Amino acid sequence: MRIGELSRRTGVSVPTIKFYVREGLLPAGQLTSPNQASYDETHERRLRLIRALLDVGGLSVAGIREVLAAVDDPDRPVHEMLGAAAKRVVPRYTEEPGDGIVAAREVVAELIERRGWQTYQGNPAAEALAVALAALDAVGHGTFMEVLDAYAGAAEQVARADLEYVARNVEREGLVESVVVGTVLGDAVFGALRRMAHVDASRRMYGSEA
Amino acid sequence: MRIGELSRRTGVSVPTIKFYVREGLLPAGQLTSPNQASYDETHERRLRLIRALLDVGGLSVAGIREVLAAVDDPDRPVHEMLGAAAKRVVPRYTEEPGDGIVAAREVVAELIERRGWQTYQGNPAAEALAVALAALDAVGHGTFMEVLDAYAGAAEQVARADLEYVARNVEREGLVESVVVGTVLGDAVFGALRRMAHVDASRRMYGSEA
Repeated sequence: MRIGELSRRTGVSVPTIKFYVREGLLPAGQLTSPNQASYDETHERRLRLIRALLDVGGLSVAGIREVLAAVDDPDRPVHEMLGAAAKRVVPRYTEEPGDGIVAAREVVAELIERRGWQTYQGNPAAEALAVALAALDAVGHGTFMEVLDAYAGAAEQVARADLEYVARNVEREGLVESVVVGTVLGDAVFGALRRMAHVDASRRMYGSEA
Repeated sequence: MRIGELSRRTGVSVPTIKFYVREGLLPAGQLTSPNQASYDETHERRLRLIRALLDVGGLSVAGIREVLAAVDDPDRPVHEMLGAAAKRVVPRYTEEPGDGIVAAREVVAELIERRGWQTYQGNPAAEALAVALAALDAVGHGTFMEVLDAYAGAAEQVARADLEYVARNVEREGLVESVVVGTVLGDAVFGALRRMAHVDASRRMYGSEA
């Protein structure tokens, strides 16, 4: 198909498609004449993936480039790919974390031990958790640790559902893509559900004030 | 305390503190001489809140300004505050959603019905969920709906833990701030835990490949 058709199918404007090609996010089309290129379903699918990571995942163009590099490397064992995807979509801390980080890392190490979680040295998600807990402590919510196991139990439930979904629905070749998409979009899904459940729980607990 | 001491205590540089004052995020210090101002613990606490929303929550300066407006309005009933906080920290969709959004909204309405969730007309979290589901559908993961109830059950668990934490630990005056901080940082905590649980579940399921 021509670029105009690709634009119509995906809702992404022609200049934006050209921008993605220049930035190396989308492979160039097959040249059919000196100034006309042809695109196929792989371009369409890749374009939808880029938009999902950008719009819903909130990743930068540089972040998307890194994620796509993981998607396009099918040689890694599945659990390594998962680690690579997690590494890329974890939000980065923009400043040096404060003093609380040392205690928070200890809390995370104890949590891993207590739940019997398999992990690996330098798992960026463990550090991201420590950073978030240190930030909670810094704003006066150090006691949030009390509910950490309730969170961990819910995370185990969601992770099992994710893995079962992937095992049931995804062919080997689409696996990396699914893991990356699921990691980013799954966060958006869960965050929205958590807010909806907040409204419900809060109505039940405090509704009489209204 | 002077601005230098405030900077040392919080790890935020003096020019950045001045920027936050100019942007209206942080109240100005009390002038003690024509070019010297004095800051107290309320400034320190507010500064830590700003950094948490910025670094861990990933909010923009404009987003933080909106969140702080909610924090500083203690007259609303609790469940309305929760709604306001949710509205501000839900990621915004940067483009018009595609055709899939109509079907996704239907899925969300059915989910609310099925779980018996109390909600309100125009809850932005419900729309955020529909957008995320439509994005999943657009990248070929429409069957993700199969695991939606596993996610919803986990979200209910986390929301209950959040509300119990707030009821147990937070005085009335700190409530809005806690809800906002908890909404943003709780997402970061849960996202990190989900990734850690993925690694564990994936090792158990696919570890033999390594």
